[in-house]
Amino acid sequence: MSLPISKTAAQIAPFRVMKILGQAKQLEAEGADIIHMEIGEPDFPSLPCVHQAAIKAAEQGCTHYTPTLGLPALRQKLSAFYADFYQAEVNAEQIVITPGSSSALQLVLTAILNPNDKVLMADPTYPCNRQFVELLQAQVISVPVDADSQYQLTVERLEKHWNSDVKAVMVASPANPTGTLIEQDELLKMAHFLAERDGYLIVDEIYQGLVYERPAESVLAHNHLPENVIVINSFSKFFGMTGWRLGWAVAPKQLIDVLDRLGQNLYLSAPTPSQYGALAALEKDALIELEQRRQIFQQRRDRLYQAMQAAGFTLTTLPQGAFYLYWDVSEYTHDSEQFCAQLLEQTGVAITPGTDFGKVAGNTHVRLAYTNDRIEEAVERIRQFINNLGDTSI
Amino acid sequence: MSLPISKTAAQIAPFRVMKILGQAKQLEAEGADIIHMEIGEPDFPSLPCVHQAAIKAAEQGCTHYTPTLGLPALRQKLSAFYADFYQAEVNAEQIVITPGSSSALQLVLTAILNPNDKVLMADPTYPCNRQFVELLQAQVISVPVDADSQYQLTVERLEKHWNSDVKAVMVASPANPTGTLIEQDELLKMAHFLAERDGYLIVDEIYQGLVYERPAESVLAHNHLPENVIVINSFSKFFGMTGWRLGWAVAPKQLIDVLDRLGQNLYLSAPTPSQYGALAALEKDALIELEQRRQIFQQRRDRLYQAMQAAGFTLTTLPQGAFYLYWDVSEYTHDSEQFCAQLLEQTGVAITPGTDFGKVAGNTHVRLAYTNDRIEEAVERIRQFINNLGDTSI
Repeated sequence: MSLPISKTAAQIAPFRVMKILGQAKQLEAEGADIIHMEIGEPDFPSLPCVHQAAIKAAEQGCTHYTPTLGLPALRQKLSAFYADFYQAEVNAEQIVITPGSSSALQLVLTAILNPNDKVLMADPTYPCNRQFVELLQAQVISVPVDADSQYQLTVERLEKHWNSDVKAVMVASPANPTGTLIEQDELLKMAHFLAERDGYLIVDEIYQGLVYERPAESVLAHNHLPENVIVINSFSKFFGMTGWRLGWAVAPKQLIDVLDRLGQNLYLSAPTPSQYGALAALEKDALIELEQRRQIFQQRRDRLYQAMQAAGFTLTTLPQGAFYLYWDVSEYTHDSEQFCAQLLEQTGVAITPGTDFGKVAGNTHVRLAYTNDRIEEAVERIRQFINNLGDTSI
Repeated sequence: MSLPISKTAAQIAPFRVMKILGQAKQLEAEGADIIHMEIGEPDFPSLPCVHQAAIKAAEQGCTHYTPTLGLPALRQKLSAFYADFYQAEVNAEQIVITPGSSSALQLVLTAILNPNDKVLMADPTYPCNRQFVELLQAQVISVPVDADSQYQLTVERLEKHWNSDVKAVMVASPANPTGTLIEQDELLKMAHFLAERDGYLIVDEIYQGLVYERPAESVLAHNHLPENVIVINSFSKFFGMTGWRLGWAVAPKQLIDVLDRLGQNLYLSAPTPSQYGALAALEKDALIELEQRRQIFQQRRDRLYQAMQAAGFTLTTLPQGAFYLYWDVSEYTHDSEQFCAQLLEQTGVAITPGTDFGKVAGNTHVRLAYTNDRIEEAVERIRQFINNLGDTSI
């Protein structure tokens, strides 16, 4: 008897980061001293006030399904949060609470893509973007970007790669894996470019709030934003609630009914305790604590950047947000997976090969997540590893 | 500017039950006395031990992502649960923890279906089954079933409707919306029939444990079960953890790697507090309390059945499990949606039109969920409503 597997599923790439994480934990179990800079989640646990709010709601019997679009109180509070922190007028009715931003991405793409439609995105990008498009039998047009353009798309690039099958463009600011931003006026131009062509602009603001040296922003703050803009966001990164699996989308009003119906089928509702927990995470005291964590990430970014420079490594871009440094290692290797595997094995430093993110230059890049405080030690281990490489590049 | 919506999404049916629920809540807010028998979730909240375990884990810092396949301890404990309660030998490695059984269904179907593949299922059935297949651009072959066969598929029916494009058959025991079971020897025959044809048998055991007058069973208990059987299960119904969004699948070993990779993309991991909560729900004391709840559902089923009979209604099937009664109302209406809308408006009793579940006879059936204790009162209101219909059928 053969057990058939679908073509799309058979071809789906694993997250290499999960493989590295697995190997790192294995080595750890064997006694190795591992510095984790691979996984894209804050090392901080979620806030105690989140836990308290979740348990309190549960003890009061709030353990049933919520409406598919989310707890009305949470949608309202996010609307107020946009007004207070981002000077953005976002109607609560346009906010769709989802079980993690993965679900938000899937929900939105399922709502708008037919098979064979095309979606433009940068290479490198967050790997799920590609996979969700392909699971819908639609196609990705990858646009290679590099440090010269902050690894981001521009209107000029959209013009160059545009064709009438393109239904959406996906961008991220701050971006994973590069930590770079898109300037707001560029985003606005892209939104208008797409509006004229009946295309959607999907803006990943999952790392919103984790921005350094400048205020955090939202594309939704624009007064004359066309209606084709969809924002994806998450309680995982700035709010530090990864394991609670809670995200949201902000979508045009015309889409809300179809998102509701799709959500009823795809996941019914986001976790109820997580939604009550998120209400607490949006309170003033919690936001003050989260701001302190942001400052810690900023210090770590600076320490990492300085340590890398001091070690003699060439860095092209100072990340402006998120908690990643995307590093061009073409001097040392054209096989980033082997580079990361050997680095882990020989030094205990776990980082992620660029092949998770980029098809074009993934083999010559790696991602370092500064979600660990042992930064100088990690860089020193990397320096020694590279010194030992000598002339034998991988 | 037009905002395109995908064809599949535009066509996706809403859950009528959600519409009824919305209307019922609206009427309630206006002061009406509503008896909720529409939604498919236990009225009981989750157990206090679940809340305590979730908060304890959170306070200890367990708020990060878990592995995509689930907490190893939970997969182990479910394996032991299968052994202790169902005499089923299930390797923990074959158990995949998911954010709700919706995700388990989607995960499994995405792993096995190519566009244009066909999936056989009964009509009536749980509506998501149909939608997930269609979202994958595959097709449903609905097999009309009725009370004469306990609303279930049989090997005979599979033979009749079989063609080589069929990749899977979906069955449920106990079933939603009918509460009926499939005998284990019939399930085993179906599994072998499909194994000979390289097809999967997907068994929805989401209502497992909520079985009356006979022991609860699992298809996994068979000693010589072929490898093509996939089981979907949930912590929502017997365990009463709907809002925690936690389910699982048991799949052949050959599929686990692809399910892992798909899950990494689709949802990353199931909610962490929910997984710790579920560990507590599988403890002996919790299971004793859940067994008491099962007995309450059984009493309610008996009370509902008796009250309906006493009111003079014709009932074809005594439900053997779940918490639903599927009622043939063809004597009174051929428009179950209008029937339910008027019943709600005139009497405050909220029930679900059969059109959520069946394309063939959905218009002449309704589903009553005995997830509410005001059973005799509800039936009396329904009796009066039907009396008032008089000769003017809807």
